[in-house]
Amino acid sequence: MSYFKFEIIHKSKKSNARVGRIFTPHGVIDTPSFVAVGTNGAIKAIDSKLVSSIGLQLMFCNTYHLILQPGVDVIEKAGGIHKFINRDLPIITDSGGFQVFSLAYGSVANELKNKGTKKTDGTVLKINEDGVVFRSYRDGKKVVLTPESSVQAQKKIGADIIIPFDELPPFHTDIEKLKKSLDRTHRWEKRSLDEHLKDKKNQAMYAVIHGGINEELRKESLDFLTKLAFDGFSIGGSFGKTKEQMFNMLKFTLNLLPKEFPCHLLGIADLVSINQVLPLGIDTFDSSYPTKAARHGLALTKKGPVKIMKGENATNFSPIENDCSCWCCRHYSLSYLHHLFKASELSGLTLSSIHNLHFMVEYMKDYRLKILDDQI
Amino acid sequence: MSYFKFEIIHKSKKSNARVGRIFTPHGVIDTPSFVAVGTNGAIKAIDSKLVSSIGLQLMFCNTYHLILQPGVDVIEKAGGIHKFINRDLPIITDSGGFQVFSLAYGSVANELKNKGTKKTDGTVLKINEDGVVFRSYRDGKKVVLTPESSVQAQKKIGADIIIPFDELPPFHTDIEKLKKSLDRTHRWEKRSLDEHLKDKKNQAMYAVIHGGINEELRKESLDFLTKLAFDGFSIGGSFGKTKEQMFNMLKFTLNLLPKEFPCHLLGIADLVSINQVLPLGIDTFDSSYPTKAARHGLALTKKGPVKIMKGENATNFSPIENDCSCWCCRHYSLSYLHHLFKASELSGLTLSSIHNLHFMVEYMKDYRLKILDDQI
Repeated sequence: MSYFKFEIIHKSKKSNARVGRIFTPHGVIDTPSFVAVGTNGAIKAIDSKLVSSIGLQLMFCNTYHLILQPGVDVIEKAGGIHKFINRDLPIITDSGGFQVFSLAYGSVANELKNKGTKKTDGTVLKINEDGVVFRSYRDGKKVVLTPESSVQAQKKIGADIIIPFDELPPFHTDIEKLKKSLDRTHRWEKRSLDEHLKDKKNQAMYAVIHGGINEELRKESLDFLTKLAFDGFSIGGSFGKTKEQMFNMLKFTLNLLPKEFPCHLLGIADLVSINQVLPLGIDTFDSSYPTKAARHGLALTKKGPVKIMKGENATNFSPIENDCSCWCCRHYSLSYLHHLFKASELSGLTLSSIHNLHFMVEYMKDYRLKILDDQI
Repeated sequence: MSYFKFEIIHKSKKSNARVGRIFTPHGVIDTPSFVAVGTNGAIKAIDSKLVSSIGLQLMFCNTYHLILQPGVDVIEKAGGIHKFINRDLPIITDSGGFQVFSLAYGSVANELKNKGTKKTDGTVLKINEDGVVFRSYRDGKKVVLTPESSVQAQKKIGADIIIPFDELPPFHTDIEKLKKSLDRTHRWEKRSLDEHLKDKKNQAMYAVIHGGINEELRKESLDFLTKLAFDGFSIGGSFGKTKEQMFNMLKFTLNLLPKEFPCHLLGIADLVSINQVLPLGIDTFDSSYPTKAARHGLALTKKGPVKIMKGENATNFSPIENDCSCWCCRHYSLSYLHHLFKASELSGLTLSSIHNLHFMVEYMKDYRLKILDDQI
């Protein structure tokens, strides 16, 4: 019996959007699906069992953070990430590459702003063909991350879907350097896959397609990676500086991607982008935006985001959304939420996070229905 | 039908401890009972509905904080505190006096340390026979708190049990000043009661017995207050500098208190003190200690407190307590909790708070059984 399967239920007549199902050892993911980010093996401000009750099917954890705290050996000893955090639903981990290269080149946002002038803070000690050496921000110890060690770490963590180690080149890179980086990424992804295939442990591996906003390189990446035995694909690397660049790159890339594989979009945030790019055929996408927005007092609703701390909400005794069935809306008024935020009460962060995750789950349910109905 | 009643079920043969029931418009409180503090109308890190599921019967809210945020008019408009925070169980509010006089004289802890030398920070503008004028730390507006306005605020809040306005004299006060303060407190409590009796609104009012650690003054306070139509009594004012002083004062005071009324101990913290003073006949006592300890990584157990962040807990895959039925212990290991605290995840604070409140609820259940069995 296969531990991983992707099934397309319906292809829209209007776009490349499709409704499908991803089968994993920890259950089904109905696609297209929003994937919440729980960096440290925890969705911020909500405990695992409560997260499960929201109906969120896939959760994204970050290998870089888990290596540093609690350490992958602790997670292995606990019996894997599902047992460690007590989650019976699917989990995906990344390779750690994105975070390490953010340390080296600065975060994506900063880097775009600073035109590539931001220097490394010395945390990353060495980058070569073998991999990366960096210092733990927790205890100062040297950590070696290679394609093989990243996959081994992800084996110990034991998520349902894992990701090969890749290099994240800075956005402000000339084409030759980008090409060199792409070639290395491909060698690293191949090494990651080889390491993975030695002992699959019921995990699926999604390749990461790179190439920045250069169509030739994206095609080269697709050509290289689709020839290997990956279970699915994800789209990574630089998405450009504007939404238009991102949209054009995704359109180009998804058109060339074999349709029978699930496709994950790495780290895409706002609802506007989601609505633009999902019709291109994205099956899953992860984002910390809904939970981060919640903690900043922004509640997502069908009529647009609601600023919880806005003065008028002090006496708004309705829930965030009248027809919302989430724990927060069933039990509390905007007025009380407004008060909790004003009084810096932690439960406000929990309640707004629950609402926003529930909103995304419901939003994607509706979205799937619309695809089934060929409206999208 | 009476909205408030106190019923004694059993008096211990071994001490003055008793098991009883307090009936309120929002349900029964089994006594002796631990009262959790939810200053802003929220137990820190746990939402109201989750708090109710823990079985905590009485919750303490602070009028001073609620006056400043969200304002008592908002709570009244919401239909009262129970509706505002969505709690179907009993609530008690204080008068605001304690906080205002802490502003004037410094907090109890600081004041004990500083030998009365701490000066006011200018927040309190005026203290006279009428009441107190202070500035809101939120918007700088002047707020007048008198016996009448405190009771009116507590009427708008609408808790099941309310407390008359009193003066909290500094610990380092000579006997003459203490006597003067006591007389004023008595006049203020009488004015509070008069204001309350104009329109009871199904609320009960507990007097606050003062007198510091001076037995003569405590007796004077008892004599004055027990002649008035209060529904119960609470013990306030200075408890002295040592546990021994507190114990002796409470023993003296409780011996003189009419036994047919419920007696509340204001703000007593640790389990050691609780075990010492409950046998004197305390029926309810409030403390922020269990939730504060939880947020600082201290889990209460039958074998003593457990430091969640202790190194050895990193790989302790048992729950905090094996036989504990709380949400935290049913679902998560100490190892995961340790990780959540190390990774500064908010859900760690929620889970440890749930455990500690549940511990207190169970602790008091056991305590009542022991009284029924004349073991205490």
